[in-house]
Amino acid sequence: MNINRQWLLARRPNGLVTRENFEYAETPIPQPAEGQVLVRNLYLSFDPTQRGWMEDRESYLPPVAIGEPMRAGSIGQVAESRHPDFAPGDLVQTTGGWQDFVLAAPNQGPMGLSKVPDGVTPEMMLSVLGITGLTAYFGLLDLGDPQPGETVVVSGAAGATGSVAGQIAKIKGCRVVGIAGGPDKCEWLQKEAGFDAVIDYKQGNVSEQIKATCPNKIDVYFDNVGGEILEAALNHINLKARIVMCGGISGYNATEPVPGPSNLMNVITNRARMEGFIVLDYMPRAGEAIAQLLDWIGAGELRFQVDVQEGFDNIPDTLQRLFTGANLGKQLLKITDPS
Amino acid sequence: MNINRQWLLARRPNGLVTRENFEYAETPIPQPAEGQVLVRNLYLSFDPTQRGWMEDRESYLPPVAIGEPMRAGSIGQVAESRHPDFAPGDLVQTTGGWQDFVLAAPNQGPMGLSKVPDGVTPEMMLSVLGITGLTAYFGLLDLGDPQPGETVVVSGAAGATGSVAGQIAKIKGCRVVGIAGGPDKCEWLQKEAGFDAVIDYKQGNVSEQIKATCPNKIDVYFDNVGGEILEAALNHINLKARIVMCGGISGYNATEPVPGPSNLMNVITNRARMEGFIVLDYMPRAGEAIAQLLDWIGAGELRFQVDVQEGFDNIPDTLQRLFTGANLGKQLLKITDPS
Repeated sequence: MNINRQWLLARRPNGLVTRENFEYAETPIPQPAEGQVLVRNLYLSFDPTQRGWMEDRESYLPPVAIGEPMRAGSIGQVAESRHPDFAPGDLVQTTGGWQDFVLAAPNQGPMGLSKVPDGVTPEMMLSVLGITGLTAYFGLLDLGDPQPGETVVVSGAAGATGSVAGQIAKIKGCRVVGIAGGPDKCEWLQKEAGFDAVIDYKQGNVSEQIKATCPNKIDVYFDNVGGEILEAALNHINLKARIVMCGGISGYNATEPVPGPSNLMNVITNRARMEGFIVLDYMPRAGEAIAQLLDWIGAGELRFQVDVQEGFDNIPDTLQRLFTGANLGKQLLKITDPS
Repeated sequence: MNINRQWLLARRPNGLVTRENFEYAETPIPQPAEGQVLVRNLYLSFDPTQRGWMEDRESYLPPVAIGEPMRAGSIGQVAESRHPDFAPGDLVQTTGGWQDFVLAAPNQGPMGLSKVPDGVTPEMMLSVLGITGLTAYFGLLDLGDPQPGETVVVSGAAGATGSVAGQIAKIKGCRVVGIAGGPDKCEWLQKEAGFDAVIDYKQGNVSEQIKATCPNKIDVYFDNVGGEILEAALNHINLKARIVMCGGISGYNATEPVPGPSNLMNVITNRARMEGFIVLDYMPRAGEAIAQLLDWIGAGELRFQVDVQEGFDNIPDTLQRLFTGANLGKQLLKITDPS
C-alpha cells in the first residue's frame, strides 16, 4: 500500500463538530528528510482541546489550516528512519494527525518525537502517561497545591484528565469529590477510582450537591468544564482556594459567547486564585511526572480507563464522543496494530 | 451636647443605595470601659465595599445588622481615654461608623485604633495612606508583580485605589493605561497622575480602545470594576498576565446576578492568573506601605485627590456618589474640625 489516508480539515465548525467538517483524502506516503523519521500511526488521541485548534484564531497553538490533516497526538511505529536515535519498528509518540503516516523529528511539532518506554502500552502512553495524565499531574500539584485534609473538587471527573487529577489528590491525602454526568461514570469514580463522593450534574442542582458533599467547602477546584459548574463551585470556595483552570468543555461547541460566572466577587472575598495553564509548558518536566505516575500505577493507587474505538473511517465520529459525553475514560482510536 | 447622632442601617438595599436604607437616631454618648477610648469622629471614609457590608450575607466581614450604625472607616479625635497609649486630643484612625462618637481600642474592630502620624492630615490618612492607598500598594505589588516595561491597565482608574495603583505602576517603570468615566477624570489621570494613556469607557467600545492603547497587550490588569470591562481586558491579556481582582463596583448595586466574562478561556490559553485579596490581611505590613507611600508623595511622584463633602445630614447621600461616579478621587465627608 503506497497510500497515505488522511482526514483533512475541510470546514471550520459552528457548534458541534460533525463529519462534514472533514474531508477524506489519499496522498502519497511522504519521504523522510535527513534527521526525520517516517511514522505509521497506530493509535490516535482525542482531546477536547482539539476543538479549539479547529477555530480560526490564534491560541496556544496556531489553528489547523483548511486542507491540512487534523492535528492529533498519536502513538506510532517507525517505518523508516533517517535519525540516528530511531530504528524501524520503534514505538514512538508524536503529533501524528489524522492520517496513516507522518514525518516526525524530536524537536518538530508540539509533541516532538519520543520513544515509548519499554513495557508501556500505547493505551497507557496516550492516557495516564500522556498529555491528559501530565495535565492532571502538573495542574493539580503545581497550581492546586493540595494539602492533606483539604477538599478537592474535580469537574469532568470521569474524563482522562479529571480522573487522574482526583486520584492524585486522594494520594496526597485530600477528600475528593468528583462531578460527572450519568450513573456509569459516577459509579466508576466511586468504586474504582476511590473518590470520596460523586456529584451527577444531570441529577439536580450542582451548587446544592456541592454544599451537601463538601461540608468544609472547596480548597482546590480542578476545572475542566467552565460555565455553570464553575459558577456552582465558586459558590462554595474556601479562604485561599485555588481554582485550577484546565479546560472549559461546556463552552467549546457554543455558537454564541457563554456568560461566565456571576459570582467572581467570591474570589475576592475569599482571597482565592484562578490560574490557567497549558501542559506543553511542562514538557521539560515530563520525565519526572511519568516516573511518579508509573510508581502509583504499580502500587495500585492510580486507575485509568480507556475507550478505544477502531477504524480509520470512524475517526471524525470519535471526536464527537468527547462532546456528547459518550466516552468513559480517555478516548482513543486504534488504526492498526503494530507490525 | 450630650447626644450621639447616628445613621442606622434601617433596610437592606435592593439596587442602588438610597437615603431610605438609613434612619437617623440620637442616643446617649457611650462611656469607655477600661482599655477603651471615646473617639469623636471628624472625617468619614466612603468605600465601594460598604455596599457589600449592607447585604445580608457573610463575607470577609459580617454584615452590618439592621439597627446598627452604618460601618465606616474614620479619623477622629480622642475625647476621653482609658487606654495608656492614647490621650485626649490625639488624632486617631478607627472604624468610627456613621455617628458622632464611637468607643474604640487597638485590637477591636476591623481597623483597630491607631494614631495618625504627625504631619499627616485626615484627608491623606483616609485616602492615599489609608485603606484605599494600602489596597493599591499591596494589590499591585504583591499580586500584580509589575516589571519594568510591562503594560499595566487599571479600571476605576480615577478612584482612590485605582489612581494610586496606576501611579505605583508608573514608579515601577511600567506603561500605564487607565480606564475611567468622563473627561474630567480622564484629564486628571493623564495630566496630573501621569498615566500614559486613558480610556473613557463612556466613549466607545472598551475592548477596541484597549487594543488601540495597548499594542503590547496587558501584563497586569488591576480590576476595580468587574463585568463588561473585565471581559474587555481579558480579550487582550498577555502570556502569564496577572489579573488583580480588587473590586467589582459594576455589580455592587445589581438586583439580579450579572453574568461574568465569557472569555475565561483566555486565562487558560495565556497561562494567566486571576487573584483576589482583601487589604485587611495586610494590616501587619501597613507601616512598610505607609512609609513608602509617604516617600513617593514627598518626592512628588504620587498625587492624590480627595472629594470632601460636609455635614452630618449629607452622610447617606455621599455614599451614593461612589456608585453614580460623581466623586473625583477619594470620597470623604467632614463632620467637624478637630477641637
